[in-house]
Order: sequence, then C-alpha cells, then structure tokens
Amino acid sequence: MKTSNRRRSIKPKLSSFAANLLEQWRRLALPTSEANIVVAVSGGADSTALLLGLDDLVKQNKLAVNLIVAHLDHGLRPTSRKDALWVKELTTELGYDVVSGRTNLKSESQKSENLEQAARDARYKFLLKTATKIRATHVLTAHTLDDQAETVLLRLLRGSAAEGLSGTPAIRELKKGSNVLLVRPLLAWAHRSDTEDYCRQRQIDFRVDEMNDDEAFSRVRVRKQLLPLMKSFNNRVVEALSRTASLLNEDAEALADEAERLLELAQVPQKNSETTTPALSVSVLLQKPPAVRRRALREWILRSRGDLKRLEMVHLVAVEKLLTGERGGRIAELPDGMKVTRKQGMLELSNKKRLKMPTAPSKIRRG
Amino acid sequence: MKTSNRRRSIKPKLSSFAANLLEQWRRLALPTSEANIVVAVSGGADSTALLLGLDDLVKQNKLAVNLIVAHLDHGLRPTSRKDALWVKELTTELGYDVVSGRTNLKSESQKSENLEQAARDARYKFLLKTATKIRATHVLTAHTLDDQAETVLLRLLRGSAAEGLSGTPAIRELKKGSNVLLVRPLLAWAHRSDTEDYCRQRQIDFRVDEMNDDEAFSRVRVRKQLLPLMKSFNNRVVEALSRTASLLNEDAEALADEAERLLELAQVPQKNSETTTPALSVSVLLQKPPAVRRRALREWILRSRGDLKRLEMVHLVAVEKLLTGERGGRIAELPDGMKVTRKQGMLELSNKKRLKMPTAPSKIRRG
Repeated sequence: MKTSNRRRSIKPKLSSFAANLLEQWRRLALPTSEANIVVAVSGGADSTALLLGLDDLVKQNKLAVNLIVAHLDHGLRPTSRKDALWVKELTTELGYDVVSGRTNLKSESQKSENLEQAARDARYKFLLKTATKIRATHVLTAHTLDDQAETVLLRLLRGSAAEGLSGTPAIRELKKGSNVLLVRPLLAWAHRSDTEDYCRQRQIDFRVDEMNDDEAFSRVRVRKQLLPLMKSFNNRVVEALSRTASLLNEDAEALADEAERLLELAQVPQKNSETTTPALSVSVLLQKPPAVRRRALREWILRSRGDLKRLEMVHLVAVEKLLTGERGGRIAELPDGMKVTRKQGMLELSNKKRLKMPTAPSKIRRG
Repeated sequence: MKTSNRRRSIKPKLSSFAANLLEQWRRLALPTSEANIVVAVSGGADSTALLLGLDDLVKQNKLAVNLIVAHLDHGLRPTSRKDALWVKELTTELGYDVVSGRTNLKSESQKSENLEQAARDARYKFLLKTATKIRATHVLTAHTLDDQAETVLLRLLRGSAAEGLSGTPAIRELKKGSNVLLVRPLLAWAHRSDTEDYCRQRQIDFRVDEMNDDEAFSRVRVRKQLLPLMKSFNNRVVEALSRTASLLNEDAEALADEAERLLELAQVPQKNSETTTPALSVSVLLQKPPAVRRRALREWILRSRGDLKRLEMVHLVAVEKLLTGERGGRIAELPDGMKVTRKQGMLELSNKKRLKMPTAPSKIRRG
C-alpha cells in the first residue's frame, strides 16, 4: 500500500484536458489497448492538443494503444511545407510514427467553398488510405464544440432539416461500409480556447493556419462575426447549439427507423415492371405522418438512384403531393430525368429516358 | 355573359396582398361565410395590413364572414390611448365593430422579458374573453414570417429541441380545450416589409410602437442585429428559418404520436400504488429510441403534475438514466418534490412528501 501511494504521489497529475479526453474515450467505448489509432494532426491548436492529450494518457498508462500521426500537406499555403515539418518533428520528439502525405489542389477560385470541400475530400481519402495501410481501427480528428456550433449555424443558414442540424457525429464509419471508425473525441466538450490553453500549458507553440482568418469563407465569418454576436445574447450559446444538435440527431435517428419500417410495409412487388425499384402503396404511405413519409420517400429514391445529388426539398414535396392528389398531376419530376408516377394507388419510380420511347397503352394497367 | 364581364372589369383588382391572404385562408381551411371572426389589431403595420387585407376580401365578396376588431390598450406607453383611438376610428371608417379593452401592467422592471410575457398573457386573455362574448370561432393575429424567424432564433439561442424550434403554429386552439381557434394567416408568407407596403398602398398611416425599437428586448436585438447579419450570409434566411421550423414541427408531431403509443404500451396497472399515476415498464420503454422514450417520459410526468413548470432537460436525463442503470441510483428527483423510482423493472412516479413518512419495508415488493 505504501509503495503504491508513494508511486502515485510522484507521478505528475493528469491534466484536466487529458482527464476530459479519457472520460470521453470511455463514453465512446474506444479501445484502451492494442489498437492502431490514427490521429489526424494539421499542427493547429485543436489537433496538436488532441495529440498532446493522447500522449499524456499513453505515458501515464491510461491508454495502451498504438498512436500513428497522419498529416496531409494540401499545398495550398506558402507555409504548408513548414507545417508538415513541424508536425513531423513534434511527433518524433513525442516518440510516435508519422505518415505524411502531399496533395496538390490547384483551383481557379482559391477562396470558394468548393476548395474547402475538395481539401476535405482529399484529407479523408488520405486518412482512409493511411488507416488501411497500417491496419488502424480508428481515425481521430480534433473537431471541437466550436466547430460543431459553426456547422449547425451554417446548416441553419441554409434552412436545413433535423438531419443537417444534427451537425457532425462524434463517431461514424470513415467511409460507408468501412470497418475504420472516424472519431471526434473533442467534439462534445472541448472549446477552441481549451485546446489553445492546453498547448500553452504543455509549452508547445502550435501552428496558425492563416486561412482560419480569411473571411471569404462562410465558416470563418460564422466564427468571427455570427457566434460572437450570438454570445452577447447567451454566453453559453456554443453549448446550447451542441445540445440542440444532439437532440435533433436523436430525433432524426428515430424517424429514420420509422421511415425504414414504413418503406418495407409500403413496398409492392411489381410484375411487368419497367424498373427494378419496387412500387409503393399510396394508402400505406398515407397512414404515417409527413415527417416519416417524406423520409421513406427520400430513402426509396436514394436506393434507386444510388445518391441524392441535386434532390431538393421541392422534389420531395412534389412527390408527396401525388399522394394526396393535390393540384392535379400524377407525375413528379426528379433531377437527372427520373420521375415518380402515381398509377392505380401506387407510386412508381422510373427513368424518363426509357419512358420517352413510344409505348403502347398498357392493357393490363388500363381501367 | 356580357354583363358579368363588364361588372368584373369595373371591379378594382384584388391586391396581391389580399390575394396571398385568400390563398392562405383556403390552405388553412378557414370559414368563408357566416362565422364571427375576431381580428386582433394593435395599430402597427402588421395587424393594420391584416385588417385591410380582410376588408379587401370582404368588400370584393371573396369572404362573407363577420369581422370584429379587438384592441387591447396595455397602458404601457404614453401613446397607447392614441393608438386605441386610431384603431377605433379606422375600424369604424371601414365599417366594422371594435371591442376595446384596457389593462394596467405595472411592473418594476419595465424592460424585462417578464413584462413581454405578462403583456402577451393579458392580450390572449382579452382575446379569449372577446371571442367568447361575441361567439367567435376564430381569433386572428398578424404574426409574420419575420416574427417566426425571430422566434426560432430566440429558441435556438436557448438550445431548444425540435418542439421549441418549430416556432409559432399557424393555427391552434386559443386555449387548451377551447373551441376558439387562434390563427396566424400571415405567418407562412408575409414579410414585415409586405405589411408596411400594403398599408402605404392603401394610404393608411399605421402606428409605430416605440417598444419595437427598444434593444433592451432580446427580440428587438434579434430583429435589428442578428437577422441582418444572418441575411449577409443568405438573403433569404427568414424563409430558410421558417422552412426549418415547419419541418421540425412535423418531426415533433410524428415523435409525439410515437411517444403517445409508447406510453400506452408501457403503462402497468398498479395494485397498492402510492399514486394514481400508472407505473411504466422499463423493458417496454427500452424498446424505443431515446427521442421517443424521452417524450413519453415527459408526457407521463406532465399528466401526473398537470404542468411541466421548472422541468428541465437535466431532470429527464436523470429519469432516463434510471432505465439503463447508468451511474447507480434508483431515484431521480424532479422539481416540486416529486421523484421517479425504479423498482422491479418499473418506473414509479411519486410525491416525495408522502414518501417521507416512515414506511415499513414492503413485504410484497421485497426480493
């Protein structure tokens, strides 16, 4: 007992940042030993703090996982090579391996939102490749509470539904169907100020990405203008937005389950069908409220098209109107030449191109 | 035919404001004849435009309802008597009856949100009294799209769930269980600028409420600071917020239905019960996702207490934790001395005071 007590008193106390990280680690049921875990580190305060917090947990024997740092140089900024070098040096000094990558996102409009999206796509592709190569089970990114609030507000500005306002999930598959999980262990609790403070406490001079100050990006303007104004109403608005996101996420999940069940109930096996997509019974769809119905229709279209690209609320509303027969019309057009037709109490999804061919009036369907 | 054509050409064209109002009237399935309908008119642009639009519809024989104007003088502003007089004169000139009321809201903190709430309560009480007296079926208020956006943002700033973010409904019972419906026929389509423009078009010089410019009220700051900043991101953010509100309202309704069904399924008739509130089966509750479960628990508590005053999310989360047995504890405290206890696979709701009496260990319940 005495020995154990003495040993404990010599050990430096776990920082509160690392303690919070450990709590979240347990809450998310992440592995505490043996696993290979990729940590995405840009060199900014958030990801540097994540790496330092994990390092603290490993060195104090709270975690026995194998950390591998991944850094992608997007080649978009003059300082990006220096950032890559800095991350490599820090990681080596801490005693972990680093996998560095480089991409070249040449773009005409360097400040467009598209560039942001392209950079994100390249980053996640690199992380998946890295995780697969080293057989990692988890990839960690350092999104914070503030990032979550920004995401929720950006979606709100577009008039999103519950799914969009749910923000970023704390844990999900890195790619659909992949075994690798993408985890954000800071999302539920860490403010940006916490990550900066923790880096300072560890006396690590994190890198600053000048694009984080470029107000040509909506996200930067949300961070620098909108959130500060909202804080003048409620100083804890970041937490409030995060709470709303998590409640709406639960709503969206419950409604998706319901929609799934409705879709199964409403499917009608089709003879002589022009498509492989099953038709849906109008009367079964009408038994459920609009929130469930609309999600079932969305899922039905997704399964047939393979994606929801360019599918807007206006298309879903048009399909819904077929159900109640409002405003005449038995056909609703979707993007990419698909359409939904109401025939004899059923909704059918079909490819317009095929239907453009001259078709003889169907004897079976008439009457 | 000729006569009819000629008559039509003499008639002044219906203003687009009145045409939009009529479209919404039909969408809300409001009565087009015989009904007595109370129009709440403060004298501001919104309610004056509502009255003028209805007047247009009545005089052009689109509506054959009996309009009665109601005006409550809150006695809060020096100009309030003049407003009352102005409304009376306008209404009489248009040829309708007016019911005027006066209240006296003396309050220590004239600028507090409580005053806003007290004024609202007094107004709705007056409207209900008026509607009952003249046997009206509907009471109309002039809330606009902009009011809806402000409401949604005020709720968002507090971290509300889907119910709060649903904003104000376009139609509801004026009081729970009342036959009188409270209707907002401008809510879905009219901007504040539309009501002002329409008043000007009709050459009516509406009254201006100086409290609408008082930035001590959060709502005024949302209007004058937050919404303008949000418009710099998306010029149609008011419509976006209204769309979000209406989608979340549909979600909340669908989930309330589900919760209602879950509550019925989970209820266990109790022998030897300390309360009249039925217990709930833990295993039945656990079959449903958190979004449905939490709403069922909320409804269960509402039915037992009669209200949800001071019930916060933290209380519901504590009750939920009893279900999964997380973090020990088989008792969750509610405000006002009520508590929820987990016993033998059931949740029981009881009044703490009664349980504070020394109770012999129950022989029936043991083991």
